[in-house]
Amino acid sequence: MSVVGVDVGASKIAAGTVSPSGEILSGARYPTPNSSAELLETIARAILEASDGFEVGGACLAVPGLILARENRVIYSPNLHAIEGIRLKEELEPKAGLPLTIENDNSAAAWGEFRFGAGSGAGHLVFVGLGTGIGGGVVADGSLLSGVQGAAGELGHVTVQTTGPRCACGNRGCLEAFASGSAIGRRAREVAAEHPDSALARLAARRPIHGEDVTDLAQRGDDLALWVLEEAGTWLGVGLAGFVNVFNPEVVAVGGGAMEAGELILKAARREVMLRARPPLRDLAEIKAATLGSKSGVLGAAALARDASSGGYLLGS
Amino acid sequence: MSVVGVDVGASKIAAGTVSPSGEILSGARYPTPNSSAELLETIARAILEASDGFEVGGACLAVPGLILARENRVIYSPNLHAIEGIRLKEELEPKAGLPLTIENDNSAAAWGEFRFGAGSGAGHLVFVGLGTGIGGGVVADGSLLSGVQGAAGELGHVTVQTTGPRCACGNRGCLEAFASGSAIGRRAREVAAEHPDSALARLAARRPIHGEDVTDLAQRGDDLALWVLEEAGTWLGVGLAGFVNVFNPEVVAVGGGAMEAGELILKAARREVMLRARPPLRDLAEIKAATLGSKSGVLGAAALARDASSGGYLLGS
Repeated sequence: MSVVGVDVGASKIAAGTVSPSGEILSGARYPTPNSSAELLETIARAILEASDGFEVGGACLAVPGLILARENRVIYSPNLHAIEGIRLKEELEPKAGLPLTIENDNSAAAWGEFRFGAGSGAGHLVFVGLGTGIGGGVVADGSLLSGVQGAAGELGHVTVQTTGPRCACGNRGCLEAFASGSAIGRRAREVAAEHPDSALARLAARRPIHGEDVTDLAQRGDDLALWVLEEAGTWLGVGLAGFVNVFNPEVVAVGGGAMEAGELILKAARREVMLRARPPLRDLAEIKAATLGSKSGVLGAAALARDASSGGYLLGS
Repeated sequence: MSVVGVDVGASKIAAGTVSPSGEILSGARYPTPNSSAELLETIARAILEASDGFEVGGACLAVPGLILARENRVIYSPNLHAIEGIRLKEELEPKAGLPLTIENDNSAAAWGEFRFGAGSGAGHLVFVGLGTGIGGGVVADGSLLSGVQGAAGELGHVTVQTTGPRCACGNRGCLEAFASGSAIGRRAREVAAEHPDSALARLAARRPIHGEDVTDLAQRGDDLALWVLEEAGTWLGVGLAGFVNVFNPEVVAVGGGAMEAGELILKAARREVMLRARPPLRDLAEIKAATLGSKSGVLGAAALARDASSGGYLLGS
């Protein structure tokens, strides 16, 4: 039986009917509306459209932000305020005609990478999503780490430098404040100001620069842009080294929009892990790019819906 | 049926036959010998003596250091070199006449606190052991987090300040380098040098001072000693805040020898968690002293032996 995965993003809602082997059989996509009522209608419409003509056993929504998955509640979603606090499951199940669960988008991506992507075949996976912020998900012994409220896996919010920049979460020096797409953009603006003759400064004189601009320039060989990415990658590695010591994973998969920069970030991260994590844990942990890309939300949510409908996240042994 | 838990420490080996409800029915204790051959003999003797007259289903050794529990291998044990690399399970099982497993002492303590101590009743527990170093163990959804090699839970080796002091593991700025018993002793020596009229300095003039001295002085109201513990507790809180965000636990239990200082460390740690961890995760996580004290090794190892003999760490639901 198929299931539906829904990626509820700040700009678009994508639903897909997904086969047991991870094939997207049918999809629907809509712009994300601003009001809670329209949001609910649009999610329901996307589910119905994607599942039309298929026998579907359930659905899961992957939602950015702080999610209490055990209560199917979205506490905080900075770029999608319309979804905060609404009774998603209770409102959507009758409209969609399916059992439905809610999960954090990065936890869903972790499960997707475990089932169909960079971690397939591995029992122990850490996924880190580098987007505007940094999120994560952990698969330990074939189970998704959920925590008592279903909010575990906030890997972007570990302190790597107590005196570091202010993070969106209110804390100082979180991994997110050093290695997210926003952090890369912020650092690029600082560096541009310090290097007025640089390509970054010339671009910054015309318009506000962001993380993507750094990746573009770096891919064209700009030294300063390369350095900004390497610095972010080094900070990422500080965090990953801790995750390697804490979780002893086989695979650390790094995904999210900022991974457009790929090895320009990952190479520095790997070096830092080799400097900071303990042998033999560090030698075994493979640090690599996630492979599901923009499909991670739909595929991950679908995989969760399937595993939830067959009695929980735990794999049969 | 009863089981045997063995606490293999740097100075003593303690074995106990433990009932299903966590009662130590019989015990044996020996000084830890220096050679590998004598160590094996002594552990076997302690198991046989403790189990004499009881029907016993298995045994587990709690060992300090970096343990690959899935291979029953001790990779690194800085204060117990005689145990490194030896074939513990293969050598001991015939001598003791029991099935035997090996686990890190702090992971065993985590399981003990979960079964019989500060986390009984909780499904999600983080245990942090403040000793000479810092170790840990995590119970997630009623399972001990093991990692692919059985080395997960190295909670002392997450970087909280990249520019921090050198850690025993070779890295800089690990939690262990700021909040362990050794770190407290090192900081006290620094502070004593800076405050030549202090009680710490007067003590340091007579002999090398250690973490215990700081606790003694602090409990007698010495301001500088109190400040050293508060600083260590604040750093501890930086680490715990990350663990709260990553694991979303119900209970964070802090044990180990340095917890003689109790609230003098924990109060500052709790404050830092409230400043750094995300609501509502931080509001739910109860940060408290572990309750098994010096029995955590024997009780934790015994609980692991029981659960291993009944088919793994996972609790029946």
